Amino acid sequence: MTGERIYLYDTTLRDGAQTQDVDFSVTDKIAIAQDLDRLGVDYVEGGWPGANPTDDQFFAEAPELTRATFTAFGMTRRPGRSAANDPQLTALVQSRAKAVCMVGKTWDFHVDVALGIPRDENLELIRDSVAALHAAKGEALFDAEHFFDGYKRNPAYAVQCIRAAFEAGARWIVLCDTNGGTLPHEIDAIVRAVIAEHGIPGDRLGIHCHNDTENAVANSLAAVRAGARMVQGTINGLGERCGNANLVSLIPSLMLKMGFETGIKPEDLPRLTQLSRSFDERLNRAPNRHAPYVGASAFAHKGGLHVSAVEKDPASYEHVTPEAIGNRRQIVMSDQAGRSNIIARLRDIGLDIDPKDERLARLLDLVKQRDGDGYAYDTAEASFELLVRRELDGVPRFFELLRFHVTDERRYNAVGKLVVESEAVVRVRVGNEIRLEVADGNGPVHALDVAMRKALEPVYPALKGVSLSDYRVRILAAKEGTGAMPRVLIRSTERDGSEMSTLGVSTNIIEASMEALVDSYVFTLLKSGAAPVARSAG
Amino acid sequence: MTGERIYLYDTTLRDGAQTQDVDFSVTDKIAIAQDLDRLGVDYVEGGWPGANPTDDQFFAEAPELTRATFTAFGMTRRPGRSAANDPQLTALVQSRAKAVCMVGKTWDFHVDVALGIPRDENLELIRDSVAALHAAKGEALFDAEHFFDGYKRNPAYAVQCIRAAFEAGARWIVLCDTNGGTLPHEIDAIVRAVIAEHGIPGDRLGIHCHNDTENAVANSLAAVRAGARMVQGTINGLGERCGNANLVSLIPSLMLKMGFETGIKPEDLPRLTQLSRSFDERLNRAPNRHAPYVGASAFAHKGGLHVSAVEKDPASYEHVTPEAIGNRRQIVMSDQAGRSNIIARLRDIGLDIDPKDERLARLLDLVKQRDGDGYAYDTAEASFELLVRRELDGVPRFFELLRFHVTDERRYNAVGKLVVESEAVVRVRVGNEIRLEVADGNGPVHALDVAMRKALEPVYPALKGVSLSDYRVRILAAKEGTGAMPRVLIRSTERDGSEMSTLGVSTNIIEASMEALVDSYVFTLLKSGAAPVARSAG
Repeated sequence: MTGERIYLYDTTLRDGAQTQDVDFSVTDKIAIAQDLDRLGVDYVEGGWPGANPTDDQFFAEAPELTRATFTAFGMTRRPGRSAANDPQLTALVQSRAKAVCMVGKTWDFHVDVALGIPRDENLELIRDSVAALHAAKGEALFDAEHFFDGYKRNPAYAVQCIRAAFEAGARWIVLCDTNGGTLPHEIDAIVRAVIAEHGIPGDRLGIHCHNDTENAVANSLAAVRAGARMVQGTINGLGERCGNANLVSLIPSLMLKMGFETGIKPEDLPRLTQLSRSFDERLNRAPNRHAPYVGASAFAHKGGLHVSAVEKDPASYEHVTPEAIGNRRQIVMSDQAGRSNIIARLRDIGLDIDPKDERLARLLDLVKQRDGDGYAYDTAEASFELLVRRELDGVPRFFELLRFHVTDERRYNAVGKLVVESEAVVRVRVGNEIRLEVADGNGPVHALDVAMRKALEPVYPALKGVSLSDYRVRILAAKEGTGAMPRVLIRSTERDGSEMSTLGVSTNIIEASMEALVDSYVFTLLKSGAAPVARSAG
Repeated sequence: MTGERIYLYDTTLRDGAQTQDVDFSVTDKIAIAQDLDRLGVDYVEGGWPGANPTDDQFFAEAPELTRATFTAFGMTRRPGRSAANDPQLTALVQSRAKAVCMVGKTWDFHVDVALGIPRDENLELIRDSVAALHAAKGEALFDAEHFFDGYKRNPAYAVQCIRAAFEAGARWIVLCDTNGGTLPHEIDAIVRAVIAEHGIPGDRLGIHCHNDTENAVANSLAAVRAGARMVQGTINGLGERCGNANLVSLIPSLMLKMGFETGIKPEDLPRLTQLSRSFDERLNRAPNRHAPYVGASAFAHKGGLHVSAVEKDPASYEHVTPEAIGNRRQIVMSDQAGRSNIIARLRDIGLDIDPKDERLARLLDLVKQRDGDGYAYDTAEASFELLVRRELDGVPRFFELLRFHVTDERRYNAVGKLVVESEAVVRVRVGNEIRLEVADGNGPVHALDVAMRKALEPVYPALKGVSLSDYRVRILAAKEGTGAMPRVLIRSTERDGSEMSTLGVSTNIIEASMEALVDSYVFTLLKSGAAPVARSAG
């Protein structure tokens, strides 16, 4: 199939917007549409004009897309109205969309129960609506709702429905697995039958899958192999219930593995990782590090022997090159860390060290011992880099934490309200100066963070840009309960939006938190190139 | 294929343990193995004896499994050693595992580059190792590393490798897509060729897939349809990079859609949802609400027309019934769902209440409001039961926490050593008596727990049996960092070994912890039937 063209249809802004807890602002929709256009997707479905104020406004301010066809979604005309007199269809006609995709019933059961009209009348609705929009817009698509469930019960009727759309001039007939329960081998058989037995050409067929059996991607690929030439999906598989087919996973498989051409230029494919991650940022959720192709861990390697082999020949351990989709290889630390593992990890952070360097052995022992103590360095790159630099070329002593003191108190305040207050006192030496600061906060860690910043920011303004973005505690030896060893993992976001992770381990959760906080300050100062305030001998 | 038997092999504790950010304690491993055994999985792979201290200890304390075969993982013997003189194989023989799975090379490239031995010698390694473990354990499995990549380059050699294992008596030959880059149609073609052209029977073949193209589940199903009869995977698709095949998604498709039999009794299948969610809790991560079959949103329906249609005939909008896997339908923005939901949970804790009881509406509002505040009651049954009983029939006031005060201090002690000390003071009213106690501990929460017990145990000896077994913190609004809302989840073990979970939510982690601690004391006293010390009017 090499060289054949597959058309990509993104429905993130319509079907993806059905996801619980997701609602896009008009600004979001404009930015996402432009990202998709820049990538080279063929169709961007903007929403349903007339369905809600956001979509109305979005279509009113419709972004100028350079390559993608801006598409509106709607449904076939209502029973008992002509297409011309159906306000919903009129809204579609009047929208600034270049193409329109209309959903209609193809499962007899839904025609009988949900619509409650004669089955022939449903065929009329489809025929009229598609014809009307085809005439008005030049490009009409038919979204065959519940097609696979319908075909399993009543193939003849399901096919009559899509043939009505086909004959009325639909550019694409999109076969939908609306409930998401169809398995790949069923998709394959049904799509092949539609083409071979019922004579609907594959270059007029699209596929729309949901992930209810974790097969949305495979189902889409099965339909393509069976002959369908358009794929619908969403960024990162967004969508109601278990999500829609994930375009971010589909695109590389189609282009890099199956040899298809899409609207995406090969040289633009590396945009994919950034598009996927910035989309999650926009939704204010952490990108999935385990995401296929684009996740931070998608090309992570663990274990010494393995890593040395990867260096010899990446192709032997990587199914595609990370760079092809804009991702990068990651060498992770672990208790299986071998020498070659460390060397590779050091190269990652820009430290080139001679494999024969005897400091390497010391470092290896240190990492293994720390790992035994519960320092999971594979989750805290910043703390790992500090450990390494301290061992190899030293880290400037920006400040010295002499002592701290935190108090959490629950009491009745002046107006008789029960309050909990956390107050932290820190004593820090910077150069010759001893800075004593106090602060309160929502909790002990917050109070400590504020107090430390009061002490350090006047001397080290570079710290101002950094903010804490996540805080996690895990007990290492759970059976010992609160008497056990807490491990604190802190994620901080730097001025440029990049993240760093630091950790602390101690029997005392407050000390563990402080350790992670201090690492985040030191790492920031190191990266910022801030000059340490020296301690004069005098 | 209806009625044919598929064997399920779980590798969560071995391959799943490779996941970044995941490290199982021995306690975790024991609990997870028992959950899998209770579900009815055929093989539980415990890890690699001799590879690391955790696995050594786990195999030393190997849990008694009633249905599953407890299996050890290892690799074929080293070049230049006899199987008998290979310490690693000896460790496998001596382990308490009932079966052993050994990984070996089947891709000529890896034999040449990674092993660097003649290809015939690799066949010897496989033959010897399988024969030795077959003789020693009665059941040996061969894990054919990189089989699909190897077969694509050099089918003859890849097949020679698995034939060597087959002829040496391997019960199962597990075909591995180690790099995870193979697509479903390739899996299908290669597995069919192995069976039809190369004569390895399907009932001796297993499949092991990774999710690097988001096809791990589909690839496993493709292998099964091609004739393989064993499926390897992990709970929730845990695994390095993008994860392993997700058994939680595979099992319902195999049993409910493809008509296969497994070791899981149909009446045990509803355990699946709870198994999946409690596993995530153990890893201290939020269960994925969009997870196929078991996610909280997997059967979510938007309100309105749709819902009435769902109620007319669920089969028209749901690909399987949620109850079949222990999940629930969720009607978004509909009190009906909440109401029946609550009634079901009340029945769970032995409270039968009339659906018309007006207290139900009050309780529903309360739970919804608390849920909005971040109280995840599905993970803390004890706190939920207390909430409900307080609302419905009241909970005796065993004591009243008047105030507390915790100090964490890092300082140099008398002998000049840097120490961190936590000291807690609590003021509690029991009956007419006000008890003031102080205690120190490894950390603030430990100190508070000890102080509270000093105050309460003399009056309520029932508390003596209870000990904290786990303590977890998750930030609810991660973006706000330490200024955000910590949720503390505490597990306590009662005298009889049964566990209870309580939680607390507050902007202050110490107060949240105290809330969870207090719930655990009150719940224990409630269950023990202890008589509350009354407060006399005088």
